[in-house]
Amino acid sequence: MKITFPDGKISEFPQNSTGYDVALSISEGLARNSAAVKVNGTLQDLTAPITTDSEISIITLKDSEGLDVLRHSAAHVMALAVKRLYPESKLAFGPATEDGFFYDFDDLHLTDADIPAIEEEVKKIVKEKVEFQRIVVSRSQALEIFKDEPYKIERINDLPEDEIITYYKSGDLIDLCRGPHLQNSGAIKAFKVMRLAGAYWKGDSNNKMLQRIYGTAFSDKKDLKDYLEMRERAEANDHNKLGRELDLFVTDKRVGKGLPLLTPRGSTLKRTLIRFVEDEELSRGYEYTTTPFMANKELYQVSGHWDLYKDGMFILGDKESQDDKEEVLSLRPMTCPHQYIVYNRRPHTYKELPVRYAETSTLFRNEASGSMHGLIRIRQFTLSEGHIMCRPDQIEEEFEAVLDLINYFMKTLDLKDYSYRFSKWDPNNTDKYINNPEAWEHSQSVLKKILDKSGMPYTEAEGEAAFYGPKLDIQMKNVWGKEDTVITVQLDYALADRFDMKYIDANGEEKRPVIIHRSSIGCYERTMALLIEQYGGKFPFWLAPDQIRILTINDSCHPAAEALKVKLSRVGLRADVDSRSETLKKKVRTAQMMKIPVILTIGESEVANDTVSVRTLDGTVVQDVKVDDFINKCLIFDRNRDLEISFK
Amino acid sequence: MKITFPDGKISEFPQNSTGYDVALSISEGLARNSAAVKVNGTLQDLTAPITTDSEISIITLKDSEGLDVLRHSAAHVMALAVKRLYPESKLAFGPATEDGFFYDFDDLHLTDADIPAIEEEVKKIVKEKVEFQRIVVSRSQALEIFKDEPYKIERINDLPEDEIITYYKSGDLIDLCRGPHLQNSGAIKAFKVMRLAGAYWKGDSNNKMLQRIYGTAFSDKKDLKDYLEMRERAEANDHNKLGRELDLFVTDKRVGKGLPLLTPRGSTLKRTLIRFVEDEELSRGYEYTTTPFMANKELYQVSGHWDLYKDGMFILGDKESQDDKEEVLSLRPMTCPHQYIVYNRRPHTYKELPVRYAETSTLFRNEASGSMHGLIRIRQFTLSEGHIMCRPDQIEEEFEAVLDLINYFMKTLDLKDYSYRFSKWDPNNTDKYINNPEAWEHSQSVLKKILDKSGMPYTEAEGEAAFYGPKLDIQMKNVWGKEDTVITVQLDYALADRFDMKYIDANGEEKRPVIIHRSSIGCYERTMALLIEQYGGKFPFWLAPDQIRILTINDSCHPAAEALKVKLSRVGLRADVDSRSETLKKKVRTAQMMKIPVILTIGESEVANDTVSVRTLDGTVVQDVKVDDFINKCLIFDRNRDLEISFK
Repeated sequence: MKITFPDGKISEFPQNSTGYDVALSISEGLARNSAAVKVNGTLQDLTAPITTDSEISIITLKDSEGLDVLRHSAAHVMALAVKRLYPESKLAFGPATEDGFFYDFDDLHLTDADIPAIEEEVKKIVKEKVEFQRIVVSRSQALEIFKDEPYKIERINDLPEDEIITYYKSGDLIDLCRGPHLQNSGAIKAFKVMRLAGAYWKGDSNNKMLQRIYGTAFSDKKDLKDYLEMRERAEANDHNKLGRELDLFVTDKRVGKGLPLLTPRGSTLKRTLIRFVEDEELSRGYEYTTTPFMANKELYQVSGHWDLYKDGMFILGDKESQDDKEEVLSLRPMTCPHQYIVYNRRPHTYKELPVRYAETSTLFRNEASGSMHGLIRIRQFTLSEGHIMCRPDQIEEEFEAVLDLINYFMKTLDLKDYSYRFSKWDPNNTDKYINNPEAWEHSQSVLKKILDKSGMPYTEAEGEAAFYGPKLDIQMKNVWGKEDTVITVQLDYALADRFDMKYIDANGEEKRPVIIHRSSIGCYERTMALLIEQYGGKFPFWLAPDQIRILTINDSCHPAAEALKVKLSRVGLRADVDSRSETLKKKVRTAQMMKIPVILTIGESEVANDTVSVRTLDGTVVQDVKVDDFINKCLIFDRNRDLEISFK
Repeated sequence: MKITFPDGKISEFPQNSTGYDVALSISEGLARNSAAVKVNGTLQDLTAPITTDSEISIITLKDSEGLDVLRHSAAHVMALAVKRLYPESKLAFGPATEDGFFYDFDDLHLTDADIPAIEEEVKKIVKEKVEFQRIVVSRSQALEIFKDEPYKIERINDLPEDEIITYYKSGDLIDLCRGPHLQNSGAIKAFKVMRLAGAYWKGDSNNKMLQRIYGTAFSDKKDLKDYLEMRERAEANDHNKLGRELDLFVTDKRVGKGLPLLTPRGSTLKRTLIRFVEDEELSRGYEYTTTPFMANKELYQVSGHWDLYKDGMFILGDKESQDDKEEVLSLRPMTCPHQYIVYNRRPHTYKELPVRYAETSTLFRNEASGSMHGLIRIRQFTLSEGHIMCRPDQIEEEFEAVLDLINYFMKTLDLKDYSYRFSKWDPNNTDKYINNPEAWEHSQSVLKKILDKSGMPYTEAEGEAAFYGPKLDIQMKNVWGKEDTVITVQLDYALADRFDMKYIDANGEEKRPVIIHRSSIGCYERTMALLIEQYGGKFPFWLAPDQIRILTINDSCHPAAEALKVKLSRVGLRADVDSRSETLKKKVRTAQMMKIPVILTIGESEVANDTVSVRTLDGTVVQDVKVDDFINKCLIFDRNRDLEISFK
C-alpha cells in the first residue's frame, strides 16, 4: 500500500503496517519519540494497523497533539495508581486539559498528604512500561466488563446505538475510552499531581460531588520544570494578587462583586494613565465630551442595544413594568448614542469633518457574579472611548491615525506582545447582528483593504463583530497565557442612519457620515491589570504611584526630609517620607517591596551639602547627587516617560 | 392714649387716632410715603383707628412689608381694571408674591395683545386715586354681597365659623380680603403686567384651569426700571440659557431629564476645574481614591442610608424583592462608606492621622422629574468629596484647613457673595437623625466653638444637619437671587463606630477616629452653573474652554494660522482657527459671542515678522506682539489663574 507523507513523498509499505513501523522506517529516534499517528486526518494509536493507501503524519511527544495524547495516557496511569492504592474507588472520567489533565473519582477521599504516595506509584508504573491495549466490544460486553463501575455504565447507556465501543486496558486498569494512547507508560518521563478539587458528576450541581485530581505530565523533566516555573511567575505576577500586595486595590463583599475600590496608589496610577491619554488625544485633534452614565430606554431602542443587549445592561427600578413605562433608565453599556446626540446638536459641513469625539467614559455591564475577577472582569469600568464621524473618503486616513495612536500608547507602555484580529459578522446569525448583508459585506471589504494595505499580520474571526459592524481587535495574553481583546476599532455604516446624523457635502446635499468606533488604550482597569503583570509591579518612573521614598539616617534629618518632600511635590513629583520607628534597612526593604523606583537617603552630610543618596530598584546607589540635579533628572524621566532611569 | 415708637419714645395721641394721623404728626413726607402701620406687631390699614395704648411703627412704601401692601393693593387695582374691561370675568384670588403679585380669573381669555389695554386702565385708576375701604360683614351678608362671584362664595363657605369676615371696596370692585391695603391707588406709581399663565383653582389639577395674570408694582418708576433690568440681566445670564448659547451643554429627552450632556467646550471647563482642584488638594496632603459608583444594600444598611435615604437612591433591578435578595445594588448617593472601607484596609497608628481622602466622585440622586433644572438639579453629578479621619485633638486644625482650602478656591474663582450657615439637628425629629442626643450636643458645641473662634459671621439653622452630624454650609445666591447650599463641611462622631474604624493611640489602645466630611469646591456641575452666571460667560483665561481664536486677514495666511495653532497646543494652550468662508468682521463677532478671551489676527506682515495682533474681550487691540512674548504671557496668565489679562 502507498503511504503519502506531509512533504508529498510517497513510500510503499506492507498492508497492516502500523504507525510505529512507518516511524521506525524513518528513524529509530522518531519512533521512540512518537505519541500517535494521524491517518487521513484522524489521530490513532501507533500500534493500530493501517489497512489502505493513506496520507499519514507522525505525531511526536513534543507536538501539541502528541502532548495531549501523553497527558490523556498519564490520566489513565494516575487512575491505575489510584486503583492500586484505593481499590474501592470508582472511576468517572479523566480527559487532557490545556495544561495537563484531571481524573474524577467517586468513593475517594484524599487529602494533600496522600499525593506523594500517588506520585510514587505513578513513577513505578512508568518504569513498568505498562502497555495500552485498545479493545473493541459490543454494548452487552461493555456493560458486563464495567459492571463494578457505575459511572462507566451510565456513560455506556448514554452512547448512541451505532457507536463503536472501545476500552483501553493498561495493567489492571480497564477504562472506557476512545483513545488514542501511547504504546506504553514509559514515555511519561515527568509527572506531577497539581491539586485536589471537588467536581459534580457531569458538571451539574444537582449531581453527586466527586473528587477531582488535577495533574500534568511532560515527555521530559525540563519541560515540567519550565512549566512549574512559569506558573510560579504567573502566580506571583497575577494582577489580582500582586495588585493587592502593592496596595493598588481592594474588594469588599458589602460593596459587591466585580466592584474593586482603588486605593490612593491605585487611583494615582489610573489618574496618571488617564491624563496621559487625554492630553495625547487632545493634541491629536480629539474633542472630549462628558456625558451621563445612564439614559432612557428610548435611546437604546434607537441604537438597537435594547433589543440585542438588554440582558447585559443594568436597568434602574422595576424590571416588571419596563416595557410600559415612558421613562425606564438604564446604566450605559457604551457611549456611542450619547456622543451622536452631541454631534447632532448643530449642523456640520464636509469641511468640518472628521469630527473626533473622545470620552473617558464609565460603562456598566451586568456580568454574572461568578465570572468576576480582579480588575479584568468587572461590573463598572472606564473606557478610553471615542467616535470619529467622517466622510467616506476619510476612512482610510482616520483608521490609520487610530492605529498609529494605539501603537504609540502600546510602545510608550512597553506592551509588545499583541496581535491583530479581524472580527467579522456571522451571516447565519441574524439575531445577533443588524440584518443588512450589503452593509456588512461593504464595510468588511473596506476594513480588509485597509488591513492588507497596512501590512500588519492579522487573523480573521467570524461571528466576533459588534452587532453594528466589523472590527479590528488588538489581542493580548495575560500572565497565564489567556488571550483577551484589549482594544477594538470598529467601522460602522449603520448607526448614523438610525440617529439621523448628517453632514452637508460640497454640493449642499445632506449625507450620512461613516462612524469609526475606537478605543485607544482600552479599558483603564484592564490595562492596569496588564501593566501590573507586565512590569511585575515595577512601574516605570512616570507611572509609579509613589515615585520617591525619602529615608533619613537619623531623626535629626527628619525636618530636612519633610522639606525635601514639599519641594518635590511642588514640581509635581510624587514623594513621601517613611517616618516609622524602624531601622533604615527595614525601611529600604519596605520601599523595595512596594517597588518604589527611587529611594533617597539623607544624613547630616547630605543635609549640609544639599545632596541626596539615590538608590534605584536595580540596587544601584549613587552618592552625593545635588538635589537640583536630582530634581531635573526626575522631571526629564517623567516628561519623557522613560522606561529605564539612571542617576549616574 | 400713649403711643410708643420703635426708638422707645412715647407720645400722647387722642383715642381713635389713625396710623396716618401718627405719621402726619412726624412729617408730611412720612405720611405721604406710608403704606400701613404696625400696631402691637399687627399690620393694619393707615386709616384704621387705634383704640388703646400701643406700640406702633409706620411701614413705608420702601419697606419690604410696605412693598407687599402696595403690591397686594396693585392686584386689586388690576382686578378692577379687568372688571371694567371684562365685566363677565369672575374673581378668584390675587396675593402679593416675592417680586410682584398675581390675580386669577375665571371666564377670562386674554392674549398678550390685551395687556396694554389693562395697563392703560390701571394707569387711569391710579390717577383716580381710588380709595380702599375696609368693611366688616356677617357671613350671610358676605354670601349676599358676593352672590355673583362663585369662587368667593366657595371661599366664604370654607372659612371657620368664628372668622371675622372683611371685604375691601375700591371703586366698583368689591373683594373678599383681610387687607391691609393702601389708603388709595395713588401710591402705585409704577405698574407692569409681566405675563399670562394658566393656574388650577386652589392649585389642584382636578379643578378648573383659570387664567392668571402676573404683574409687579413699585412706589416709583426707577425701582421698576431697576427691577426689569435685573430680570433682563438674570435672564441673559441664567446658566440654563447662557450655558446652551455658549455651547457648554445640551439635553435630550431620549437621554432623560436631569441628565445634561457636556459638549467639548463644557467638558473642557469641567476637566480644567477638576484638575485644578485635584492638584491643589494633592499638594495639601489629600490622597485620592477611585471607588465604584454602586454598592450592595448591605453597605447602606451599615451606614444608615438604606433606612433614612432609600427613596432618594436609584435601586438596580427589581424593587419588589429588594428586601429578600442577598445582592441588591444601588447607585451611590455619597462616597462616605466606600472611603471608610479603603481606610479599613489596613491598621493605622495615631502618628499616621490625619488620613485625608479625596475623590472626584460621581453621585446619583433619584430626583422627581419635575424638579430638574439645567446643571443645578440633576440626577447624576460630580462632587469634590472627601473625608478626613483624625484624632479628637486634630479637629480644630483640620477644620480650619478645610475652610482655608474652600476660601482659596472661592477667591481663585472670584466667587465673593457667599455666607456661612451652621446647620444643626432637630431634637424633635429623631426619625430623620441618628438618635444619639449626647453625640449631637457634643459635636454641635465643638463646631460652634470653631466657628466662633474663626470670627466668620454665620447663621444657625435647626433641622438642616446631615442625618449623622452637624454641618457648616456655604450658601450662595444664583442670578435670580435664590440661595442654595454649594459646599458643606460636616462633623461626624457616629459613622466610625458603625464601620468599626480604628486607630491605635500612643498607649497602644484602639480608638475611634473623628470624621470630617467635606467638599472643597462643591458639585462641579453646580459650580459651573454659578461660574457661567457670575462671569456672564466671560470666563477668565485659564478657565475659558477655547482660550485663543486665530483669524487670518486672507487665505494665504491659513497655513501660518494652522502652524501657530499647533505651536500653542504643544504648550498646552487651547487654540483653534476659524477657517469659515466669512468676513473677518463676522469671525471676530462670532468669537466675541462665544466670549473667547483672546482673538489673534494674522496677515502677511504678521507672518513675515512672526508677530500677532491681539484682541481681548474688553475690545483692546495690541498690534505687533512677538509670538514668543505672546505665548509666554499666556502661560503666565494660565499658571497664575489671573482674572484679568492684558498684552500691553
